[in-house]
Amino acid sequence: MIRTAILGASGYVGGELLRLLSTHPVLRPVRLFGDSKAGQNVAAVHPHVAPAYREVRVERFEPAALDGIDLVFAALPHGESQKIAAAILDRGIKLVDLGADFRLSDPAQYARWYGEEHQAPALLGRFVTGIPELHREAIRSAQAVAAAGCYPTAAILACKPLVEAGLVDPANLIVDAASGVSGAGRALREGTSFNTVAGSFAAYGLLDHRHTAEMEQALGPRVLFTPHLAPMARGILATCYGAATRPMQADEPLRALRSAYAAEPFVHVIADPPATKWVAGSNTAQVTARFDERTGRVLAVSAIDNLVKGAAGQMIQCANLMLDLEETAGLSVCGVYP
Amino acid sequence: MIRTAILGASGYVGGELLRLLSTHPVLRPVRLFGDSKAGQNVAAVHPHVAPAYREVRVERFEPAALDGIDLVFAALPHGESQKIAAAILDRGIKLVDLGADFRLSDPAQYARWYGEEHQAPALLGRFVTGIPELHREAIRSAQAVAAAGCYPTAAILACKPLVEAGLVDPANLIVDAASGVSGAGRALREGTSFNTVAGSFAAYGLLDHRHTAEMEQALGPRVLFTPHLAPMARGILATCYGAATRPMQADEPLRALRSAYAAEPFVHVIADPPATKWVAGSNTAQVTARFDERTGRVLAVSAIDNLVKGAAGQMIQCANLMLDLEETAGLSVCGVYP
Amino acid sequence: MIRTAILGASGYVGGELLRLLSTHPVLRPVRLFGDSKAGQNVAAVHPHVAPAYREVRVERFEPAALDGIDLVFAALPHGESQKIAAAILDRGIKLVDLGADFRLSDPAQYARWYGEEHQAPALLGRFVTGIPELHREAIRSAQAVAAAGCYPTAAILACKPLVEAGLVDPANLIVDAASGVSGAGRALREGTSFNTVAGSFAAYGLLDHRHTAEMEQALGPRVLFTPHLAPMARGILATCYGAATRPMQADEPLRALRSAYAAEPFVHVIADPPATKWVAGSNTAQVTARFDERTGRVLAVSAIDNLVKGAAGQMIQCANLMLDLEETAGLSVCGVYP
Amino acid sequence: MIRTAILGASGYVGGELLRLLSTHPVLRPVRLFGDSKAGQNVAAVHPHVAPAYREVRVERFEPAALDGIDLVFAALPHGESQKIAAAILDRGIKLVDLGADFRLSDPAQYARWYGEEHQAPALLGRFVTGIPELHREAIRSAQAVAAAGCYPTAAILACKPLVEAGLVDPANLIVDAASGVSGAGRALREGTSFNTVAGSFAAYGLLDHRHTAEMEQALGPRVLFTPHLAPMARGILATCYGAATRPMQADEPLRALRSAYAAEPFVHVIADPPATKWVAGSNTAQVTARFDERTGRVLAVSAIDNLVKGAAGQMIQCANLMLDLEETAGLSVCGVYP
Repeated sequence: MIRTAILGASGYVGGELLRLLSTHPVLRPVRLFGDSKAGQNVAAVHPHVAPAYREVRVERFEPAALDGIDLVFAALPHGESQKIAAAILDRGIKLVDLGADFRLSDPAQYARWYGEEHQAPALLGRFVTGIPELHREAIRSAQAVAAAGCYPTAAILACKPLVEAGLVDPANLIVDAASGVSGAGRALREGTSFNTVAGSFAAYGLLDHRHTAEMEQALGPRVLFTPHLAPMARGILATCYGAATRPMQADEPLRALRSAYAAEPFVHVIADPPATKWVAGSNTAQVTARFDERTGRVLAVSAIDNLVKGAAGQMIQCANLMLDLEETAGLSVCGVYP
Repeated sequence: MIRTAILGASGYVGGELLRLLSTHPVLRPVRLFGDSKAGQNVAAVHPHVAPAYREVRVERFEPAALDGIDLVFAALPHGESQKIAAAILDRGIKLVDLGADFRLSDPAQYARWYGEEHQAPALLGRFVTGIPELHREAIRSAQAVAAAGCYPTAAILACKPLVEAGLVDPANLIVDAASGVSGAGRALREGTSFNTVAGSFAAYGLLDHRHTAEMEQALGPRVLFTPHLAPMARGILATCYGAATRPMQADEPLRALRSAYAAEPFVHVIADPPATKWVAGSNTAQVTARFDERTGRVLAVSAIDNLVKGAAGQMIQCANLMLDLEETAGLSVCGVYP
Repeated sequence: MIRTAILGASGYVGGELLRLLSTHPVLRPVRLFGDSKAGQNVAAVHPHVAPAYREVRVERFEPAALDGIDLVFAALPHGESQKIAAAILDRGIKLVDLGADFRLSDPAQYARWYGEEHQAPALLGRFVTGIPELHREAIRSAQAVAAAGCYPTAAILACKPLVEAGLVDPANLIVDAASGVSGAGRALREGTSFNTVAGSFAAYGLLDHRHTAEMEQALGPRVLFTPHLAPMARGILATCYGAATRPMQADEPLRALRSAYAAEPFVHVIADPPATKWVAGSNTAQVTARFDERTGRVLAVSAIDNLVKGAAGQMIQCANLMLDLEETAGLSVCGVYP
Repeated sequence: MIRTAILGASGYVGGELLRLLSTHPVLRPVRLFGDSKAGQNVAAVHPHVAPAYREVRVERFEPAALDGIDLVFAALPHGESQKIAAAILDRGIKLVDLGADFRLSDPAQYARWYGEEHQAPALLGRFVTGIPELHREAIRSAQAVAAAGCYPTAAILACKPLVEAGLVDPANLIVDAASGVSGAGRALREGTSFNTVAGSFAAYGLLDHRHTAEMEQALGPRVLFTPHLAPMARGILATCYGAATRPMQADEPLRALRSAYAAEPFVHVIADPPATKWVAGSNTAQVTARFDERTGRVLAVSAIDNLVKGAAGQMIQCANLMLDLEETAGLSVCGVYP
């Protein structure tokens, strides 16, 4: 048994970590920290995992409570893990952080997109980007991993092989993506109430959404990213438009994806575009791409579950690597459908 | 009272015409044609309008049944109205056709995108495009109008003023749009079953969707159009990306929309992006646009109800013009929300 | 033009009143009161009605602002209209109140079910119950009407004719009903967030829901009412179980409903059970009933839109009667479907 | 490894069996039979499990294909497994059947509710009812199990301990239940299209739904069952009304449930009513009950996932028992939420 703690245990990602860890062969969530629900039983906070964690309580975080913990999963609002990462790492504990705090290697980019100075720039160099398909070996030997988050994971998995293969101009990408409502977190807002969202589809964060920075760091210098809110709880579909660098066969982008992901357990390359529900509850990304001779563009589409491959599942996949476990332990490749 | 007939009365657009006409001051749907449900009572075909049309029956179409009809609304699968338009027009009856048959002025374009020869090319010149905001005067004096349909209406209303104002390069447009499921019509398909769609979001028709042709006819020579299916019954959101022709102020595209639509009863220009549910059940389009200095692009977003402004409402708006009635008769500007 | 004011204009019922009044021939909402959004433009509070009310603002309520108002629509949390009803009525203004404050004729019942003493028991006698199908003549001559609300309207319309015809024992009714989420109002709660509700169905308020009192007042001494929350924004379906008083033909309850509602513009009696979406956006109730020989029970089912027939539409129907207007003015009988 | 075959592999239950078996430690689905999709790859039929079964094909069934199979999961329309059960059992293969064919021990009841003579009445005695909580020991030693199906499982788990404890009169039960749309199967019907169901709630099968028979067999001589269709893909909530046999404390029914299910891995007894999404994707039933002194009734509520505890999960739980495996193997107790 490997002892883990969850920071942000009362949010949706916290709940999803609890669900996935309930069938993990080795990892056990032995401490749950969540300030807003501290003192409450898991059953009150996450009734869907109550049968597996009947008597467990959420606690207020304090560093001393980490004694004996092997690995921390942090799923906190941005700005929070900066404050406590040193305390975790200095104890020799491994850390998988889902927040934006340690994703951008350049603290100036953090300041620009998040509107505040980074509080722990000295730690940035200790974090590895938590996309196993791109950084597997670095993750294996890392003490600290910054998981990429939902929108960036969806966009990067679809586009990165196309950029690397030289098929797409990295200076001119458009990522048009739709997310389920859980991507907005559990805090109450009118914009995520059922009455606002049900039967409705909308764009938001026009031109200046923060995840643009993370996409540009991974893909190239110029990404235009438009997120949308879709009336579903889970899932992200990213539809990505690149300018082709040259004429090519219609299926050349698809072949580049197949080649890049041939050995990946959690990326499934297909010829036709996926639906988000095909991957719901699973750690799988389903991706496709093709070249459009008429307009000279490459179109790539990916589907992930934002709470699994875009959050808790990716975190566990990273933890499995960091702890030298089977990479797929505790993670399903099959979606919950319909 | 003006006597109208509906061709395709048993489909969703037929039902929506019946709903809207139930409060129209003058237009009455006195004959309902729908071959697959011929002989059935409206209450069996459209239970939502049963209280207004208790004893009315759907009939099998025959031209002689048009005697005494002033105007025909046709909402048929493409290919069907080509066969009967002459019979309607030769009787001196006005026609508002929602199908694709008479939208493209060039029959070669029809053949290319719809995969079959046009059967009545001689009639193409008699049809006016049914977007009142662009063709009001021509519609007033027309005997035959080809309504633009849902995706083209959404895209054209968002982009046309930007192209006309010279802000956007018409040779390089991307229209990324999401539609509710009613846009796929009432025929049964696995792709539109509840279990397939609920909680899911997907792209379809990659690179070759037919409505591309209609957008290119209205907007410019090169449109890349990607439709998506969203888990909602109604609504279209079109997110449109254009290459700016020059640097401009961030709100210059918005001002162009405001200027173009200042006097329009059914286009509402706003600074922030709309949600589709704001216009559900109404004939309103809510639109916005802005310039992105970082990437040199103009982003425009529109929301319509595909069954109203994108279908039945637009048809009635055209009919009102053709019949010299109040343009807004029978049409609401307010959405049914939440 | 008749001048009306809306109290509680920023809630969902307020928004629905604005939508319906936008096509009403005579009633105009000239003052909008809503404390939490006072000072905001209607476009910011209700973007779906913005095209009809571009420049109108929500104000903080004060009685002096009622000068010149002919009729007040009040859609306030329970307890609120008790405080201000006298000020309205003393000015000679008509009042249609949707809150629970004046629904129960016995103030002891109010205290029992709402957990607080009634603050204006002397006014109770001045209010008429606002179900036009049951109290039409009293409403016509009333200054003050207490609209019945959503669940009671659905249950009472289904059951009352069966009780009155002596087919069902009034001392032993079960009302099992499901409501859309808008019935819970616009205040933010985890229980009405999209993520909680989407794809989920749940019972709540077991055994002690307040609307039980209003059903018992109308139907009989003993009603067991179980409300459920369904993943939809609008609509109530009430499935009602009564003990038959005697054996009867299977369709005798249906005939009792047909007889009771033969002349009603907004009650549509059908042989098979309705779906809530058939009445969405309309003021129609669709109802059915039948006798079960096997168990000796009568089953009655009704569908309404909780925001229209269960709230704003019923209020306007009452106002039309009180003001001697056409009863159906501004109200549609057709649902927005699909 | 234990070799299993799936009959009805192309339906929703077939897909759910594939999902659950993809993480089962021992059971492998080595043959997939599904006549309508015979010859197709699993990826085409069930894209959500494609990553786990890339090359597997669906075949047309023939008994010879069962050679080497240890256990058959049958998820066929009623009437079908009657035809082939003998061929399976005579080969000494174990069978878990989800259809209705072998649920009713009295063939006359089958004829009455299903409208056709039973074709294999001699086999009825060889089937054990597949509700492990009630029939665990019999299942362990059975060659053939008839899984109870979705609505009966939900109702029986909620009510059986109350009947057995003598708290509720078995001659007078009402089961009012709502199901997600997957309960209607994968065949295309207008009643299960997205446009029909989304945003709508309806009752169906009034008074004569077939599952009444199975509830009466388990619970008592007189059950009135009303199913409803809720706008969600998965889940059943059963709200059950019983006449109390005597006055009791409000929590006496809850204590009876707790006592009955204290050792059950897949039944979670709670004080407040559950939501269906709490159990989505899991094999858990969440149940509650209470006594209502005011009306003398006992109210019991249960939530299950119709495709898991009501179908594929229950089948695997039974198979685990029949094969002397860990009863919980391959099954999760945690729901996929939100």
